[in-house]
Amino acid sequence: MTQTAEFPTPRLGEPYLLTPGPLTTAYEVKEAMLRDWGSWDGDFRAMTATICRRLLAMAGDEAGDYVCVPMQGSGSFSVEAMLGTLVPRDGKVLVLANGAYGLRAAETLRYLGRDHVVIDKGDYLPPRGDEVAAALAADPGITHVVAIHCETSSGILNPVEEIAEVVEAHGRKLLIDSMSAFGAVDLDVRRIRFEALVSSANKCIEGVPGFGFVIARRTEIAAAKGNSHSLALDLHAQWVYLEKTGQWRYTPPTHVVAAFLKALDLHEAEGGVAGRGARYRANRDTLVAGMRALGFETLLDDRWLSPIIVTFFNPADPAFDFARFYDLMKEDGFIIYPGKLTVVDSFRLGCIGRMDAAVMRRAADAAGRALTRMGVASAAPPALALEERARLAA
Amino acid sequence: MTQTAEFPTPRLGEPYLLTPGPLTTAYEVKEAMLRDWGSWDGDFRAMTATICRRLLAMAGDEAGDYVCVPMQGSGSFSVEAMLGTLVPRDGKVLVLANGAYGLRAAETLRYLGRDHVVIDKGDYLPPRGDEVAAALAADPGITHVVAIHCETSSGILNPVEEIAEVVEAHGRKLLIDSMSAFGAVDLDVRRIRFEALVSSANKCIEGVPGFGFVIARRTEIAAAKGNSHSLALDLHAQWVYLEKTGQWRYTPPTHVVAAFLKALDLHEAEGGVAGRGARYRANRDTLVAGMRALGFETLLDDRWLSPIIVTFFNPADPAFDFARFYDLMKEDGFIIYPGKLTVVDSFRLGCIGRMDAAVMRRAADAAGRALTRMGVASAAPPALALEERARLAA
Ligand SMILES: Cc1ncc(COP(=O)(O)O)c(C=O)c1O
Ligand SMILES: Cc1ncc(COP(=O)(O)O)c(C=O)c1O
Repeated sequence: MTQTAEFPTPRLGEPYLLTPGPLTTAYEVKEAMLRDWGSWDGDFRAMTATICRRLLAMAGDEAGDYVCVPMQGSGSFSVEAMLGTLVPRDGKVLVLANGAYGLRAAETLRYLGRDHVVIDKGDYLPPRGDEVAAALAADPGITHVVAIHCETSSGILNPVEEIAEVVEAHGRKLLIDSMSAFGAVDLDVRRIRFEALVSSANKCIEGVPGFGFVIARRTEIAAAKGNSHSLALDLHAQWVYLEKTGQWRYTPPTHVVAAFLKALDLHEAEGGVAGRGARYRANRDTLVAGMRALGFETLLDDRWLSPIIVTFFNPADPAFDFARFYDLMKEDGFIIYPGKLTVVDSFRLGCIGRMDAAVMRRAADAAGRALTRMGVASAAPPALALEERARLAA
Repeated sequence: MTQTAEFPTPRLGEPYLLTPGPLTTAYEVKEAMLRDWGSWDGDFRAMTATICRRLLAMAGDEAGDYVCVPMQGSGSFSVEAMLGTLVPRDGKVLVLANGAYGLRAAETLRYLGRDHVVIDKGDYLPPRGDEVAAALAADPGITHVVAIHCETSSGILNPVEEIAEVVEAHGRKLLIDSMSAFGAVDLDVRRIRFEALVSSANKCIEGVPGFGFVIARRTEIAAAKGNSHSLALDLHAQWVYLEKTGQWRYTPPTHVVAAFLKALDLHEAEGGVAGRGARYRANRDTLVAGMRALGFETLLDDRWLSPIIVTFFNPADPAFDFARFYDLMKEDGFIIYPGKLTVVDSFRLGCIGRMDAAVMRRAADAAGRALTRMGVASAAPPALALEERARLAA
């Protein structure tokens, strides 16, 4: 696989970002930011309309049952807007957590004073349909379920389809944080029932950061007037204004929006969700194979590995020093996440962004060189970590 | 005055934005967005630190009594973050309103359930020290006063110095929305006492939109833990995280931040607040003179005209059609605000952005050509509008 023409090295010795959002974007995406737009002007309103229409198509909304509402700020702002607007003040939420982003959704609900309970699965395991069913059966007061599609803190791909079936069977409402999955992992309203999903510009659609968006069932958002705890994050008000004027309620990040439109073009040219997902899966497979050849092992059992980001155990060898590993990788042209988000010592490498399998092979090679320079003979994790993983997966 | 080299026409026939934010930015500012940054990486953390340091210097904080906290989203998000975090839940706010942004601050407080009262001065007049003093004397329960520095909906420059003195004399706290003024109109902590100001990337500092910032007295923000109604907009949590890690709490708009750093360079090169303010005042004077020569008249009395944006009455001539005026101005290379924000029929032209007096003269010329093409003989406003203005100013 040589796609060097299609996926050139970033310019000026710029490193690749193995961090899933912000991530490495195509040069054309950034070039789209080389002009200023009047946000009230018809040309910009048309860009917003196109973006919303194409995102709805990406979610498979042929029937026009859903609306797309963009929201300024990072992805967390859109998550809070979705929760604060779509969950009524007397609602009760079941949060399915297995990492930092699930816990953040719960923390958001705590700030908002919305009643909620959490199923916390730790770092290794997904919430499964049967336990969700049991929780819903036990508590008829639960009105909404929040699921994280890809829990980016470990890279686990949660079984949203299974969860959606159970939530529907119990007559409750499903809200999905698909921040790091939408655009590369299928989430189609014709196949999976949900009331809303949230994602952002700078993940699998490969735009630059600055806004997020919620795709919500029209009847749900229409009924959500007066729920929001916040003016800026009132998704209902944002939607009403957008419908009426074609404009964002407050100043949009115009350049970021222009870049996103170009990113959508590239997404379509790559074959949409299927094409993007195939590249990311190939990225992941190449990365995991290369890292395993060095002795590294993944935090998760293979069946839960997402094509978005992979967490590896730190090597047991005491010569391994993460801070130095970070610096050596950076010297070699790869920015990785500094710091872990799991309980055990681990680090994460992203597979998303404007990179192909050839780049992932070079990333694994760079990891190998870093180990050599640190004097780490094998990257094998502590035996205990592997035992724990096996025990939990059993 | 010919600054054609320094202030080139935007490329590719791109129109000038006579809309104060988003506005016309320098090409170098946009070029700074041509690379991707890892938001956790040391290089990006250093950019954030530089930006905060330079904004504090711009506010004259030599003593280190203030902190600068950037916040993702549009300016309104930062306003809400400031109000929700710095006003305790049992606080009471006096909002000084004379236009849309003052009223929006009050609406924000309503959403947040924070007690507040409003002095509403309509569209023409600023809130004055004596009436603020009377309101504070009458209600000792008022803990905070919110003032709008430049009320961008009319362009009125409110007398914040006079207001600050009264607020201090009554032992209350002042929060200033200096969104459209900071960076071009002096707001120096050594001269004007306030607890916090809020502004954003895409106004007088001439960056692109995507974040705002609050400059707050350190003791105030340190005491603000637990006040916020919102996780995403919790300015205290954002500050604590920034102090601890050097990072934004959630994904920052990395490209917008890089552009802002370049915009700060250009701001400094122009002579800081004084230099920027001088150019904008020359822009305004040229624009107003050119428009008056056509018969247009300003909504406001001269003494309240800001160097940011000027509101003009619509001409009385029935041949004047604003939608057509908008289109003709656009054809001629100038995007103006579609729609009015005042009670009387009026429109606004911005004086800020990468433009000089030569551009403003061309803008007035374009307005003249548009009148001719519409068959408007004189741009004079209805006599009643001028009488009303005179009556109010008396
Ligand atoms: C699943 C998930 N939810 C929420 C977020 C928060 O997004 P942001 O950092 O843009 O606020 C992320 C970010 O990576 C994420 O992966
Ligand atoms: C004085 C003032 N306050 C608040 C705002 C709101 O800013 P934004 O549109 O970025 O939300 C503006 C925008 O022009 C403003 O001029």
